[in-house]
Amino acid sequence: MKRFAILLCLIGVMFSCKGVDGVLSGETLSSPDGKLSMVFALSDAGEPMYSLSYDGKPVIRPSHLGYTLRGEFKGGHPQGGTSVKEYGTPRDLCKGFSLLDVARDSLDETWETVWGEESRIRNHYNELAVTLSHTDNILMVIRFRLYDDGLGLRYEFPLQKDLTYFTIKEEQTEFRLGGDYTAWWIPGDVYSEEYNYTECRVSEIPLRMKQATDYPDPRQFSPSGVQTSIQMRSDDGLYVNIHEAAVENYPGMHLDLDANTLTFRSWLNPDAEGWKGRLQAPCKSPWRTVMVTDDARKTLSSRLILNLNEPCALDDVSWIHPVKYMGVWWEMITGKSSWAYTWDYPAVELGVTDYSKATPNGVHGANNDNVKRYIDFASEHGFDGLLIEGWNEGWEDWYGYQKDAVFDFVTPYPDFDLPALNAYAHSKGIRLVMHHETSSSTINYERHIDEAFDLMKRYGYDAVKTGYVGNIIPYGEGHYSQPMVNHYNYVVRKAAKNHIMVNAHEAIRPTGLCRTWPNMIGNESAMGTEYRGDIRPAHVTVLPFTRLQGGPMDYTPGIFESDISRLNPASQHYMTTTLCKQLALYLTMYSPLQMAADLPEYYSEHLDAFRFIEDVAVDWEQSRYLLAEPGDVIVVARQVRKSTLETAAKGLAALPDGRKDYVNGATRFSAGPGDVWFVGGVTDENERTAEFPLDFLRSGASYEATVYRDAPDADGVAGIQPGGANPGKRYIIENKIVTSADSLSIRMARSGGFAISLKEKPVR
Amino acid sequence: MKRFAILLCLIGVMFSCKGVDGVLSGETLSSPDGKLSMVFALSDAGEPMYSLSYDGKPVIRPSHLGYTLRGEFKGGHPQGGTSVKEYGTPRDLCKGFSLLDVARDSLDETWETVWGEESRIRNHYNELAVTLSHTDNILMVIRFRLYDDGLGLRYEFPLQKDLTYFTIKEEQTEFRLGGDYTAWWIPGDVYSEEYNYTECRVSEIPLRMKQATDYPDPRQFSPSGVQTSIQMRSDDGLYVNIHEAAVENYPGMHLDLDANTLTFRSWLNPDAEGWKGRLQAPCKSPWRTVMVTDDARKTLSSRLILNLNEPCALDDVSWIHPVKYMGVWWEMITGKSSWAYTWDYPAVELGVTDYSKATPNGVHGANNDNVKRYIDFASEHGFDGLLIEGWNEGWEDWYGYQKDAVFDFVTPYPDFDLPALNAYAHSKGIRLVMHHETSSSTINYERHIDEAFDLMKRYGYDAVKTGYVGNIIPYGEGHYSQPMVNHYNYVVRKAAKNHIMVNAHEAIRPTGLCRTWPNMIGNESAMGTEYRGDIRPAHVTVLPFTRLQGGPMDYTPGIFESDISRLNPASQHYMTTTLCKQLALYLTMYSPLQMAADLPEYYSEHLDAFRFIEDVAVDWEQSRYLLAEPGDVIVVARQVRKSTLETAAKGLAALPDGRKDYVNGATRFSAGPGDVWFVGGVTDENERTAEFPLDFLRSGASYEATVYRDAPDADGVAGIQPGGANPGKRYIIENKIVTSADSLSIRMARSGGFAISLKEKPVR
Repeated sequence: MKRFAILLCLIGVMFSCKGVDGVLSGETLSSPDGKLSMVFALSDAGEPMYSLSYDGKPVIRPSHLGYTLRGEFKGGHPQGGTSVKEYGTPRDLCKGFSLLDVARDSLDETWETVWGEESRIRNHYNELAVTLSHTDNILMVIRFRLYDDGLGLRYEFPLQKDLTYFTIKEEQTEFRLGGDYTAWWIPGDVYSEEYNYTECRVSEIPLRMKQATDYPDPRQFSPSGVQTSIQMRSDDGLYVNIHEAAVENYPGMHLDLDANTLTFRSWLNPDAEGWKGRLQAPCKSPWRTVMVTDDARKTLSSRLILNLNEPCALDDVSWIHPVKYMGVWWEMITGKSSWAYTWDYPAVELGVTDYSKATPNGVHGANNDNVKRYIDFASEHGFDGLLIEGWNEGWEDWYGYQKDAVFDFVTPYPDFDLPALNAYAHSKGIRLVMHHETSSSTINYERHIDEAFDLMKRYGYDAVKTGYVGNIIPYGEGHYSQPMVNHYNYVVRKAAKNHIMVNAHEAIRPTGLCRTWPNMIGNESAMGTEYRGDIRPAHVTVLPFTRLQGGPMDYTPGIFESDISRLNPASQHYMTTTLCKQLALYLTMYSPLQMAADLPEYYSEHLDAFRFIEDVAVDWEQSRYLLAEPGDVIVVARQVRKSTLETAAKGLAALPDGRKDYVNGATRFSAGPGDVWFVGGVTDENERTAEFPLDFLRSGASYEATVYRDAPDADGVAGIQPGGANPGKRYIIENKIVTSADSLSIRMARSGGFAISLKEKPVR
Repeated sequence: MKRFAILLCLIGVMFSCKGVDGVLSGETLSSPDGKLSMVFALSDAGEPMYSLSYDGKPVIRPSHLGYTLRGEFKGGHPQGGTSVKEYGTPRDLCKGFSLLDVARDSLDETWETVWGEESRIRNHYNELAVTLSHTDNILMVIRFRLYDDGLGLRYEFPLQKDLTYFTIKEEQTEFRLGGDYTAWWIPGDVYSEEYNYTECRVSEIPLRMKQATDYPDPRQFSPSGVQTSIQMRSDDGLYVNIHEAAVENYPGMHLDLDANTLTFRSWLNPDAEGWKGRLQAPCKSPWRTVMVTDDARKTLSSRLILNLNEPCALDDVSWIHPVKYMGVWWEMITGKSSWAYTWDYPAVELGVTDYSKATPNGVHGANNDNVKRYIDFASEHGFDGLLIEGWNEGWEDWYGYQKDAVFDFVTPYPDFDLPALNAYAHSKGIRLVMHHETSSSTINYERHIDEAFDLMKRYGYDAVKTGYVGNIIPYGEGHYSQPMVNHYNYVVRKAAKNHIMVNAHEAIRPTGLCRTWPNMIGNESAMGTEYRGDIRPAHVTVLPFTRLQGGPMDYTPGIFESDISRLNPASQHYMTTTLCKQLALYLTMYSPLQMAADLPEYYSEHLDAFRFIEDVAVDWEQSRYLLAEPGDVIVVARQVRKSTLETAAKGLAALPDGRKDYVNGATRFSAGPGDVWFVGGVTDENERTAEFPLDFLRSGASYEATVYRDAPDADGVAGIQPGGANPGKRYIIENKIVTSADSLSIRMARSGGFAISLKEKPVR
């Protein structure tokens, strides 16, 4: 395969030299540290082009920018029907431009996060904005921001007479790569982001597509189409990532690859009529980002995507808080119990089916007794919240039928006493987390959302997990089209008004909007723990480079029982992970929302290891990536955020109104005057020894370290042994005193990991 | 043309004899009076078929019934994207049936209307329900109800194991006509119902299509497609009408014609993915209706459509009342003034454009002074309400752009003081009528509807005119698809909960749902007065046979100034109508919601004739169609409803809370102990003398009659004469005393008409 790839690469380079000039001459812009530089130029035909290089090495060769727009409706007369045609001449905003104005700017500011990997983020860039005039009398601005760790570019259409309302046929942004990079990518699906990553040369992507997806057309938009964020690495050690930031009122961007020229082209997710966005000037596109670093750890530390988003839109963020939670969830995912209440009927109908007369199926997870059991356990072990899925009527037919009114979001099953369970939970310091599965009928959800949020507020829920499983209603929309982007953002805004935090599953992957709307405390938008045995060991070493660049993921880690047949004898799933790798995910998969996904009974079998999940914080003062390589390994150290320590210092008694929430295991653990750090590391299918200094610790201080690591005979890949032994669950817990002068060397098993808590010893 | 048509007809009959048996043998059903009879039978191939005859004459020859269903998604796995494919085998529910059960029933009841052409309606039918078992293990019931004036048939799918959720590919209901009837029809547009009717033989429909519509594909679904209701007449004097009743959670039905066999086939309006309805058993289709009478007057008196709808769903209807209203509307329609407030900007944006800083365009209709002028006039002349369009921000770009958030329905323009104007109106006994133009973004409307209705209730609006101009958002939906039907019905239900009456424009034409939801006091859904000079003289002689069968129309009659260039010198429109025809429309176009559409200044020029509009009632105890022929003439007499008389008897002082509304000109006119009738008559482009007895009046009583009729030299078609004279506006008003023994003979000019008020003389 490799020889073939090199051949392709050569052809590509030859081909590209003919198509586009190798060097652009025009407006240049450098990053603050001078290492990244870019050029903007117009070709002789008035084509906007840009290129990007790092230390003189081409990262993006001269590439086109622009749009094609739909022809307008003639005379504004409405034309209708189910197959909308194009009238008039489409506008070609890929050429015919002249340069009207060049403006430069720069910024160096530091902003405070509401929650995050660090409390303060530096936003430091140089900016170039070119105003272009098109022969069709259209003004378009292209704004470039160059950071030390990457480029952001966006299109802007000022208020103007000859371009008011317009429809995108396609955005024509090119990324002509500097070489045949190694890429970690998922297929360009219009319906799902839930894939394992494929690692291969860019030129090999089309050849690997069949292996990469089970879902061909119509879900896969092109045989060479991929999703963003895509992480790449050049042969000379540059880490290049293409993504987007601040997707609002615009479709999500996929990329189509021309493997011959190693060129990615933007492919916007179409709406039900096939168009790629309906805009009104003045307006701005999302930022298109090319992150470039010479060290994978810098890529994980990059805040490029957040920085390109708008500042927080909320005046009051006091109601937003990180959440460590458990859930009546994994038992349904594994098939041990069911979301549905009854098997009595061939089909159920909301408001018609009388559940009080239905025979309970005996395996309904969200029943009062079971929920109380979870509340007791979660409370005892210092969690903030408990998610309960399957609490409301309708789950018997919840997806697969494009059924409009599956749920009303307010009617519990007969065995779920919503007021009583909330009261019980609150008495134990637990908040129930609401669940709104929409079955992708956004029309139905929007019709009920006010009532649904009212119910939440009445009973003291302050967080909701939303879900978008199945085909979208409105019919014909994909999951990432402009109307759906608008829906997801509508829900976040409406939730914010109601002081509700949102964790959206199956919505579009985030693009840093949580900076603006910090009540977006989570998203799924990638393959998570629910895929069980289908997840490859390297998956979690890639996600932080790709999916997590846009915002946190509700990955739902913490599975102690990797043999799913123990939960459900009919299941063949075995999770290729060690128990310690599951602990490490609380660090390596940053999120302010972290679940302990397994069942209380399995945690009870390993309460010594579970102690780490109790203790670990979910909000950080600073983070240090110690080792990182996509597809291989990630080790990160994180310092507990000062506010967590302050809460801990106040202690339970100091809280008003007898309120117990927010005083979770992490605050308990962190209580005291000293500094607290956690470290986590994960590896792929290869065993690996992580060596790293502890120089991030406070110099001169001593720390009590508890190390949770794979036992020497642990193995996350081997599976259940003859005789029934599970080498994934073998671990060692060690306590030691360390200082910033120490280094650690920790072996990780195949698909293994480790986790460390570090608490400064009080000086007496 | 006629010879060609006859040839086609012969071919059709020959062809049809080969295709389908001429006579069905099976289950028979007769109407209560025995004149209509139908047969249901299964063919040898298990095809459900029916036929219908009147007095032995075939009206519907043996015709197929059934469905084709989409193949299911295999294994219920969601497949997505913008081009949804069919998986599995489509189900053919057109054949393969066997007869499982036959049930018969009958009903003879009388129900009371909340408002209507009569206070009580008799619902009298014989019923046949056949339960069919399909080889695919599917149960389907076809229910037939035979009335003296027509047939209703519907499909029902009971709760069953092997058919739960299903998607309609097409409904396969046939109507094989008994002959080459003369038809009054409009083209099968998926976007608009606003057409003049074409009168021709059924066989000629394809040949006349080009003349009938300016909008070919994609709006016209087929070169031989028409909309329902379609009115027809056989050569031997039968009046046949095909329509539907009770369209809920189902697309609207058009008809596709096979001109060779004179067969109409159901064609359901597709959703954005091209499917024709997503159903869940148990469920029922709307009723398919074939109305048959031997007298056109009986067709207009038929209550078949209302009877086939469900009874009133509301416990309390006390808040529902007929409305006679004026509007700040016609001046915008004619171009005299504008909905928009400013011309400052190339485009406006809700919540961004600062109208307080905009330059008023000087022609904004909905300004405080102008609205007050209308309030004063409407109050003085005994109206209930005043509609004001263009009151809210956003009208500058209100349609044609598929703009999502055009309006928020709560933010007035700077020159519209909503609280003050409502207070002023209420002080004068006028209620303002709210206007919610959605620009067809149903998504946006539903997001704002709660807030919009809250505003209405806060300021005392109790009626809303909604509008759906332009292409629908969600993208790809037509105006009459199932999701849109569900939207329109959603709004009506939500309005009912808020005690709000609804008058929906550009929504699907009504199908009798106002029986169930009597807060649906109006719809447009046909070409109305707003088309000005484009309306042909015969139009209003057809509408009561077609559009009005399903429910009242907000036709907005009462235009006194037919020369539109007086309002707007740039306009070429001349309305081909006499002034008296405009008066007659208050009778011939039955609606509980009647507008006096013209401007106060033009009414002031003819206050003697305007007196009729002041006096005429809008709710009736009984109605008698005296003359009727589609495309030619309608004369109707209506008796004022007892409740109107009772309100009148109470008088103004008797009303609680100083409330003045509902005491309109009609109640004033009707006040007193006696009986009150109104008569109206309209003709087409031909002048015509209407002769009719007054035998509907109370025998022995004398009535003061005021006759408003075309002057001998009046002409509704001639247009403005050299010198400027307008023969459309020539009229005569006569007062006389009449009794039930009298007959009247009244000449109507070309496109003319007449109106009469009849008030019983008190006996002293």
